[in-house]
Amino acid sequence: MTDVRKPILAALKGEACTHPPFWLMRQAGRYLPEYRELRAKAGSFLDLCYNPAFAVEVTLQPIRRYGMDAAILFSDILVVPHALGQPLTFQEGEGPKLDPVRSPADLNRLSKANFHAHLEPVYETVRRLRGALPPEVTLIGFAGAPWTIACYMVEGGGSKEYAAVKGFAYRDPAGFGQLINLLVEVTADYLCTQIDAGAEVVQLFDSWAGVLPAGAFRRWVIEPTRRIVALVKARHPDVPVIGFPRAAGLLYEDYVADSGVDAVGLDTTVPPVWAARTLQPRLPVQGNLDPIMLAVGGDALRRAATEILEAFSGRPFIFNLGHGVIQTTPPEHVAELSRLLKAWPDVA
Amino acid sequence: MTDVRKPILAALKGEACTHPPFWLMRQAGRYLPEYRELRAKAGSFLDLCYNPAFAVEVTLQPIRRYGMDAAILFSDILVVPHALGQPLTFQEGEGPKLDPVRSPADLNRLSKANFHAHLEPVYETVRRLRGALPPEVTLIGFAGAPWTIACYMVEGGGSKEYAAVKGFAYRDPAGFGQLINLLVEVTADYLCTQIDAGAEVVQLFDSWAGVLPAGAFRRWVIEPTRRIVALVKARHPDVPVIGFPRAAGLLYEDYVADSGVDAVGLDTTVPPVWAARTLQPRLPVQGNLDPIMLAVGGDALRRAATEILEAFSGRPFIFNLGHGVIQTTPPEHVAELSRLLKAWPDVA
Repeated sequence: MTDVRKPILAALKGEACTHPPFWLMRQAGRYLPEYRELRAKAGSFLDLCYNPAFAVEVTLQPIRRYGMDAAILFSDILVVPHALGQPLTFQEGEGPKLDPVRSPADLNRLSKANFHAHLEPVYETVRRLRGALPPEVTLIGFAGAPWTIACYMVEGGGSKEYAAVKGFAYRDPAGFGQLINLLVEVTADYLCTQIDAGAEVVQLFDSWAGVLPAGAFRRWVIEPTRRIVALVKARHPDVPVIGFPRAAGLLYEDYVADSGVDAVGLDTTVPPVWAARTLQPRLPVQGNLDPIMLAVGGDALRRAATEILEAFSGRPFIFNLGHGVIQTTPPEHVAELSRLLKAWPDVA
Repeated sequence: MTDVRKPILAALKGEACTHPPFWLMRQAGRYLPEYRELRAKAGSFLDLCYNPAFAVEVTLQPIRRYGMDAAILFSDILVVPHALGQPLTFQEGEGPKLDPVRSPADLNRLSKANFHAHLEPVYETVRRLRGALPPEVTLIGFAGAPWTIACYMVEGGGSKEYAAVKGFAYRDPAGFGQLINLLVEVTADYLCTQIDAGAEVVQLFDSWAGVLPAGAFRRWVIEPTRRIVALVKARHPDVPVIGFPRAAGLLYEDYVADSGVDAVGLDTTVPPVWAARTLQPRLPVQGNLDPIMLAVGGDALRRAATEILEAFSGRPFIFNLGHGVIQTTPPEHVAELSRLLKAWPDVA
C-alpha cells in the first residue's frame, strides 16, 4: 500500500494529488549560499560527494528552505566510472576530466573489484538521509544511464560532437557493447544497493540521450535502460524507476513504450500539451519548467509554471524543471515557485 | 519551368529523382587538405570569408572532388551581426567571440548604415560562383535564422545553457523582439541580395532552435522564419527557401506547418521513417546522415546511408548530413558516400 504521507510516491503509483508534488533537479548546489559555504570547507567537489556528513547536509539544505517533496541524494553520476577505476578530476569551471576509454583493450583498465567499497560513502549518505528526512519527504537515489556515462568515459569529459563515443559505437558495436554491458550490470547493482540503504525511488539520468539517431537510440539508450529496470525490479519490484532521456524529442514515445520505466522525466523542450495527451495516459510524468525561467523569476516564471500545471495537473504528475537549477538562480525565485506550487490551483 | 539540368531545383520543386541529389553541410572546410592550404595563406577565418577569390575557390573545392549537386556559398552566419557593427573575432580552436548585446539599450550600438557595403564581398563571391559552377550544380545562399543569430549576439559566443539569451527573451520579450525584428528585416534583405547576385536557393540555419520550450519556439523560431520567408517570397516568389531548425524534435511538425519554408532540413536525431510518413508528404525533406558516420566510413556508413535512402527515395528528397562535416572526416569517406549515392539504387 502506498504511504499516503509521501506525495511523490503516491504520484509515482498513479495517484493524482491536489497539489502536484515537486522537487527540482540540482536543487542542492551552487545557487545556495549555505552550499557555497560548505563547499569552501570540503576541499574538492569529489571530496564533498564522498563525505557522508557533508553530502547529507548539502542534500538537506534545499528541503529546509523550500520544503520540496523529495530529496535527491547529493552525488555525481561520474562516481560510477570512478568506482570502476577510471581516473576522474573536476577542474573548477571546466567540468569533469577522465582518462578516456576508447577501445575494448582500454576496458581492461576497468575493474569491478573495488566498486562497492569505493561507493560505500554514497551508501552511508543514503542511510543517514533516510533517518534525517521528514516522514513526508521521499528520498531519491540516482545513477547516470549507460549511454551518458559512456559518453563521459569515452570522450574523457564533456563534448560538442560526441565524435569519439559515437565513433566507437558505430565502428565497433560489439566492443562498445562490452562497455555498455558492464555499465548495465554495475549501474543496476549500484541502484539496488542505494535502495537497500534507503532510497525509495531511483532516477536514471540519460543527459546525452538526445544526440543519437533512432537506431542507435534504441540500441544504446532504450535497451540498456530496459535491462537495468528489469534487474532493479527483480530485486525491488515496488521501487519506482524514473527515466530521464533528456532531449529525446521524437523518440520519447519509443522510450516510454519500451524502456520499462515507471515514470518519465520531460526536458524543457517537450510541449506539455503533447506530453499530457501522448505520454501521461501511460505513466506519470515529471517536468518540465525551463531552469532559465527560474533564474528570471517574476511574472514570466509564474506564467510558465502555470502553463505546465494546467497541462499536467489532475493526473499523475511531479512538478520539476526540464534540466538542473543554474548557478545564477536567485534563491528567492525558488521560494516563489514553491509558494505557487503549494497554493495551486489558487493563484499564488 | 524547372531547369531539369539541376536536380536540386527539381527536388525542391517537388520532383522525385532516380538518384536523390546531394550536398553536405560544411562540405567545404578543414577536412580537405586543399582548404587547409588555402586557409594558411588567407590570414584569419574572417579574411577568408571576406575575400571573394578565396571564398569562391573554397566553395568549389568539394564540387571538383565529389560532384555534389549543390555548392553552398562559403561564408559564416555571423557576418550578419558583424555587418550590423557588432565586433566579432574567431579565436583558433575557441569559436567566435562577440561583444554581447544584452538589453534594448545595447541595440543602439547596432546600425544598418553599413550593412550591404560590409557584405559586398559576399555578394561578389555569389556573382563569381554563379559564373564558375557547372550548369547542373545549384548555388545555395544562406543565413542564420534570427533566434540562432540572437543566441550568438546575446551570449557573445557559443553557450551551454543559453542563460543570457533566454533570460533576455523571457524577462523582456518586447525588448528582445526589437532585436529579432531587426534580424528579420536584415536577414530577408541579405538573402534577397544573395539571390539578386545569383543564389538559386537559400537556406536558413537555425542551429539552436532545439533549446526552446514550445511557446518560445513558436515566437522566436517559427514566427521570425515565417516573416523572412514572406519577405523573400515577395521579391523572389520562385526561389526555394530551405529551413533547418536543428534539434526541433517534437516541434518539427509545427515548424513545417507554419513557417512557410519550401523544404525542411532534418537533423541527425529525426527518425527517417517518421519524417517520411509525417513531413515528406507535405514538402521536400533534406538530410540526415549522422556526420560521425561519415567520419567512421566503411560498412557502417553504407548501412546508415542506405537506411536513409530507403526511407526517403522515390519522393522529393535531397540527401545531406544531419549536421556539418566534422574536421576529422577522411576525404575518401566522402568519395565513398558520393559513389554510393550516384549508384543508388544499385549496391555501390
